Amino acid sequence: MNDYQILKNIEKHITLNDLEIDHFLSVLKLKDLDKKERILSQGQTCKKLYFVEFGSLRAYNMNEEGKESTIMFAVQDWWITDMDAFVHQKPAVLSIETLEASRVMELDFQKLEELYIKIPKFERFFRILFQNAYIREQVRALENISFTTEQRYLRFIKKYPQMLPKITQKQIASYLGVTPEFLSSIKKK
Amino acid sequence: MNDYQILKNIEKHITLNDLEIDHFLSVLKLKDLDKKERILSQGQTCKKLYFVEFGSLRAYNMNEEGKESTIMFAVQDWWITDMDAFVHQKPAVLSIETLEASRVMELDFQKLEELYIKIPKFERFFRILFQNAYIREQVRALENISFTTEQRYLRFIKKYPQMLPKITQKQIASYLGVTPEFLSSIKKK
Repeated sequence: MNDYQILKNIEKHITLNDLEIDHFLSVLKLKDLDKKERILSQGQTCKKLYFVEFGSLRAYNMNEEGKESTIMFAVQDWWITDMDAFVHQKPAVLSIETLEASRVMELDFQKLEELYIKIPKFERFFRILFQNAYIREQVRALENISFTTEQRYLRFIKKYPQMLPKITQKQIASYLGVTPEFLSSIKKK
Repeated sequence: MNDYQILKNIEKHITLNDLEIDHFLSVLKLKDLDKKERILSQGQTCKKLYFVEFGSLRAYNMNEEGKESTIMFAVQDWWITDMDAFVHQKPAVLSIETLEASRVMELDFQKLEELYIKIPKFERFFRILFQNAYIREQVRALENISFTTEQRYLRFIKKYPQMLPKITQKQIASYLGVTPEFLSSIKKK
């Protein structure tokens, strides 16, 4: 029963006793999702943080001109949400949908706030999680400024090798912030 | 004695008693810096996290071709370091220097690790700090992909109004990832 991926993820940084594991599992909600199922829509209040038990998801924004920008992909063992909208309980600027049949664990905003109080070790867990997420985004910001699109494409396939069979060239292009035609010209090199 | 900016920053998220304040201040090191003083050099191990009591600093990377990319600015009440290098105690990819005479508080890596154990409230403080930093970088990543340089310049002057008198056009251009000439052509519009 306790062989959930999310417990292995948590135990990378903190150790829970049996009671704490029971409590933690009791605040989670397991959800099985179909391919192309949307779990967050731009404009909606973002009430949940998601952990990927298996499968893969994509978070993206659509601007006023209808241009899509992919902000992140999430595969097994990753956390995903519109963090700004989740933390501040305001309308999402991102939509999130599955790229294949997937299973996620949902953690509700209010329940997470209670979890910090009830089991303060989770402060440590999420401190390390956010610290790593911040580092990842800081590295990405530097790459976005200083790397060519070709270098960024090579970093992408190194970072997400398991994603490649599941995503379209258009989605990769929208993650790199270029047109599919430009990406295709780079790949030919 | 206790009117340090850093204590006001901490108290945004947690409350410390007098003993905890004394301990926290005892692990910090106050440093007065001249203009253009460098506190971290690319390639060096990054041992400190810095908090800006007053003044302003810039973190930047120089690539193999000698091109500079500014990754962040920090003004009063901000924290700054090469977080990847600090957390993993590995060589920095960023250099950090002052833009004017400044005062910083230094927090040593080992002392911060001990602080988490001794006063676990700091787990909460840094959880919230990293959470906000992650959100800021996620928003920036989306803007980098989906905004024009003109929109990003307007966001920049709105985000860092107090920086404008202190930084050169070249530094702003290197933050936006464009040439100074391109930035100048945008400003003329």
